[in-house]
Amino acid sequence: MRRVQTEEPTLAPAIAARLRRNDAGLVPAVVQDAATGDVLMMAWMDDVALARTLATRRATYWSRSRQEYWVKGETSGHTQHVCSVRLDCDGDTLLLRVDQVDGACHTGDHTCFDADVLLAEEVES
Amino acid sequence: MRRVQTEEPTLAPAIAARLRRNDAGLVPAVVQDAATGDVLMMAWMDDVALARTLATRRATYWSRSRQEYWVKGETSGHTQHVCSVRLDCDGDTLLLRVDQVDGACHTGDHTCFDADVLLAEEVES
Repeated sequence: MRRVQTEEPTLAPAIAARLRRNDAGLVPAVVQDAATGDVLMMAWMDDVALARTLATRRATYWSRSRQEYWVKGETSGHTQHVCSVRLDCDGDTLLLRVDQVDGACHTGDHTCFDADVLLAEEVES
Repeated sequence: MRRVQTEEPTLAPAIAARLRRNDAGLVPAVVQDAATGDVLMMAWMDDVALARTLATRRATYWSRSRQEYWVKGETSGHTQHVCSVRLDCDGDTLLLRVDQVDGACHTGDHTCFDADVLLAEEVES
C-alpha cells in the first residue's frame, strides 16, 4: 500500500537565517495590491506560513487570535495570489505583492485602511 | 518671569481608545510613498510618537533598538512629510502616506524592501 503524502514545504535555511522574528516567532507581512499599489492589510507569518506562501503563491498567515494557519480567502473566497515576496533591510518585515480577489478586509472594504482616517490629506489652497 | 513652553501634543481620547497596542505599547506603522505608492518601510509608534506625528506632520517613530523617539530624517535629512494617517479595521496597524525626501532606507535605497527578494514575480510566458 502506498500513501500519498502532501509534503510540508520548509523554509530555505538561507532565508530562515535572515528572518528576525518577534518573541512569538512571527514576522509582520505588509500586503500590497500588485495592480493598484494600495496597501491592503497587515498580517503575521511564522516560518511555516512563509514557507507555504513561497511554495504555493497562496498567501498564508498565522492568526494570532485563532492560533492557527489561515489561507487568505479559504473561507471568504477573497484569495490572494502572491506575485512577489520581499524581506526588508533588517529582516523583520515582509512585503507581499498580491493579486487580490474582491475586498481584502473582513468588513468587505477593499483595504483594511479604508474606514478610519486619523489625519486627512492637506487641501491644496 | 515667563517660561516659553513647548507643549507636548497629546492623542485625542477617541483615537487612543481605538488603538490596539502590543505588549510594549506599540503599533506598527506601514509607510507608503504618496507619490509612487511604493511601500517604503515599517516602523513602530507609541501614543506619543503618533500624537507628535499627527500634530506636526513629521513622521516620528519609537526606536525599539535605541529606546528613543526618532523623527525620521532628523539626522540623515531623509525626512518624511506626512500626507495622511489611517488606522486599520482592528486598530492595530497604522498606514502613513508620506512625501519622502531621498531614500527611506538607512542603506540609501529608496525603500527598505529593495534588496532582498524571496520570491520573484512570475515571468509571463
